Amino acid sequence: MTLAISARRLADLLGPSRGTGPAYRELADLIRLLVVDGRVADGTRLPSERELAAALGVSRTTTTRVYAELRGTGLLTSRQGSGSVVSIPISASSASSLIITPDDADTIALTYSAPVGPPGLARAFEIAATKLPGLLTTTGYLPDGLPTLREILAQHYTDGGLPTDPDQIIVTSGAMGAVSLLARALLAPGQRVIVEGASYPHAHESFAAAGGRLTALPIDTTPWNPAALRSALEGSPHRAAYIVPDFHNPTAAVMSDEERVAWARELRRHDVVPVVDESLREINLDGVDLPPVFATYDPRALLIGSSSKSYWGGLRVGWIRAPKAAIMPIVQARMMDDIGSSAFDQLVLAELLTEGGQTAAAGRARLRAARDHLLAELARELPDIKAPCPAGGLSLWVTLPDRMSSRLTTAAGRHGLLLTPGPRFFTHSGSVGERHLRLPYTQSHETLSEAVRRLRIAYDDVVSDIASGPDHGRSDTLELIA
Amino acid sequence: MTLAISARRLADLLGPSRGTGPAYRELADLIRLLVVDGRVADGTRLPSERELAAALGVSRTTTTRVYAELRGTGLLTSRQGSGSVVSIPISASSASSLIITPDDADTIALTYSAPVGPPGLARAFEIAATKLPGLLTTTGYLPDGLPTLREILAQHYTDGGLPTDPDQIIVTSGAMGAVSLLARALLAPGQRVIVEGASYPHAHESFAAAGGRLTALPIDTTPWNPAALRSALEGSPHRAAYIVPDFHNPTAAVMSDEERVAWARELRRHDVVPVVDESLREINLDGVDLPPVFATYDPRALLIGSSSKSYWGGLRVGWIRAPKAAIMPIVQARMMDDIGSSAFDQLVLAELLTEGGQTAAAGRARLRAARDHLLAELARELPDIKAPCPAGGLSLWVTLPDRMSSRLTTAAGRHGLLLTPGPRFFTHSGSVGERHLRLPYTQSHETLSEAVRRLRIAYDDVVSDIASGPDHGRSDTLELIA
Repeated sequence: MTLAISARRLADLLGPSRGTGPAYRELADLIRLLVVDGRVADGTRLPSERELAAALGVSRTTTTRVYAELRGTGLLTSRQGSGSVVSIPISASSASSLIITPDDADTIALTYSAPVGPPGLARAFEIAATKLPGLLTTTGYLPDGLPTLREILAQHYTDGGLPTDPDQIIVTSGAMGAVSLLARALLAPGQRVIVEGASYPHAHESFAAAGGRLTALPIDTTPWNPAALRSALEGSPHRAAYIVPDFHNPTAAVMSDEERVAWARELRRHDVVPVVDESLREINLDGVDLPPVFATYDPRALLIGSSSKSYWGGLRVGWIRAPKAAIMPIVQARMMDDIGSSAFDQLVLAELLTEGGQTAAAGRARLRAARDHLLAELARELPDIKAPCPAGGLSLWVTLPDRMSSRLTTAAGRHGLLLTPGPRFFTHSGSVGERHLRLPYTQSHETLSEAVRRLRIAYDDVVSDIASGPDHGRSDTLELIA
Repeated sequence: MTLAISARRLADLLGPSRGTGPAYRELADLIRLLVVDGRVADGTRLPSERELAAALGVSRTTTTRVYAELRGTGLLTSRQGSGSVVSIPISASSASSLIITPDDADTIALTYSAPVGPPGLARAFEIAATKLPGLLTTTGYLPDGLPTLREILAQHYTDGGLPTDPDQIIVTSGAMGAVSLLARALLAPGQRVIVEGASYPHAHESFAAAGGRLTALPIDTTPWNPAALRSALEGSPHRAAYIVPDFHNPTAAVMSDEERVAWARELRRHDVVPVVDESLREINLDGVDLPPVFATYDPRALLIGSSSKSYWGGLRVGWIRAPKAAIMPIVQARMMDDIGSSAFDQLVLAELLTEGGQTAAAGRARLRAARDHLLAELARELPDIKAPCPAGGLSLWVTLPDRMSSRLTTAAGRHGLLLTPGPRFFTHSGSVGERHLRLPYTQSHETLSEAVRRLRIAYDDVVSDIASGPDHGRSDTLELIA
């Protein structure tokens, strides 16, 4: 498999050029970012130095230095006859630290939105431990899940107005485990999937990895414009639609009742299966009224829930709620996958779901306080950044005063703050999303304050760089910082 | 995607016909078995009644009754213009009960080989619980695994003679989680994978689901004939080879030092990545000398280990040990998969690996006793069945006196004993494997005794059916039992 990226496409991903000066360092940083966050895949052949120089409107000397710098840090290898190829040589821990969690205690990562364990979680583990002996006498082999947990989850849906039998529940390894399992169970290679224009990127990648072709709808005032859906469905046949209707990631939008009605009608009419990620639904921080779950509108819907978002990232238990007729192919697909989820984690979740909701409430209270703290810090330190208050979910979706998200991300990285640039959330990326940044509020107040302090320094760097204009070039400023 | 199976292929899967009498019931049972264990996929169009009758050498009346019976139990739907299509209508619990675990306490399932928790496991959970508080203050988000556990696993390999850095370990969701993750990380659609002729079927399905084309080597005196490998590799380019060299599943064979040397040489020469499932290596019941792990022979090898096999099926923690350069694409693939494994299960495994080995030893002692018990019961009740004693692993691989594995499986099902028919383990199945049966010894002595009692009744049914010969037909007998 040979991957290549055209000069035009790479220039598009790098965003508008700001000058013809020696901007090589910043360009190298931006390319590194594209590789690290997966927008340019390992093994991709980059355009020639000459082509890239032309596409960016910079000198050949600049692109030569960019490639030399990338080769120097081992990110680019030059192969006889095949040009310059991206290769990721870094070790596992440093690689994943760039994607997810920092190696060193000084670095702050706002690149993921998994909550720390809320007060009360340790108690749920203790109670689960008292139930362990009965389970240890079994093989613990639970491809569709612990029966008790399936009953509790079914009752939870039934109580919420959606009659559900335990047979309609499959326990999975987190919400992502559910997404990737459904992607594989549903899709034959080449089948099309409707997705929101912006979303959790790993979910979209999972559908693509299963052979799906993604049709990303535009995001204007809502990610769920029914007219856009109709037009896409009339254009070509689709197999499934993946949506996050409750506190949509990353925008925090909630799909309205009218949109749900319209979507259910269109999807049914075109025989498209709704895959509905409701893993953020329980993180309703302000207790707003949410429309019913999507299966109320379309009984064919496959619903996804998760404890990793509502309780703790280390609790790898999610679930799928499906119509009975859809269950069997999913369980069969799971046998080629991870077979089953942690038996003990399932005991813990069963306890959390029956204790009366106090741990979930404690988790929400903590997140609400963290959200408000982050909003206050941003308002004080970075008033240029517009940060609307989300009613639920785990992160802010802020608007920057300029198209600077990737540059802000690279600048922040130099100050020990890892961010995910806005374009990463857009499926047909290009430089869409450069005005946005997702800022999770799942960490402590102290960490969030320090993160905002570093963000402010990075922001000032980028702004002074922009202010210095094309003649001064961007790299001069950035080299002073590095 | 339309699937279809030819009359010839279906007749091949059903095995040799034994008469022209009203054998419809047994044929229906055999087809049901093929569907339930996945050899005929959900949604497959069956041949016409006329074509199947001709291929089986039975009357058209018989195949008409077979299809009517399958329609009656809801396994076959007749669609206008598209013939008779397999559709699995059964609920999740009853479906998975057929594949894996029984719904009712009276049914015994010898269809899977996950061990119950050994003595000492509860204690490991208790100790892990004391370490939980430190983890709860983090997000528990561990895409490459709990650092402590990775260090312990790396030290384990280093102590065993294979120097390993913690960065070379990725913790996964069981061995199957590792297999499916590697299948997706390694393969582009259409790439070929060398596999043993018989193996754990879900592993092979996982490579196929990732787009791989399987080249199954023949099994003669060994699953690893170097000449067969050489011939396959010279025939066409391959990307990877998946092997189970230690207590191979299902044959319990161990790859010799000479075979490892020859395989490593051939795989290196043809640039084929070894994916080596060592999840049964620690279940060395008789303490036999095993050759070193495969990475000692070929440093490019990706090694797979698991706690689900060595300790408990409910502990969903496996791992991959890889060269540093191979780690990054695997971690990236994992981000589209299940993201991370249960944090608590990882604490438990870390404890089990540092306590000095007593829980693992207790588990092996229990398995050894169960193995010997099953062998003794079989020798007494079913002396016609040849059951060699495996030096390790979780199951016997027995030889039947006739090609009867599928018929024995259907007959046993009527007596409350679920088996996996031999052909299920053969990748290019047909009726290969009809002389074999895998019998796991992971359950209690009482259960194993009762299983052998039921197996004996089923065996007597099948033998008297065979003895009654073609003129009497098989279904007469079987209908009496049903």
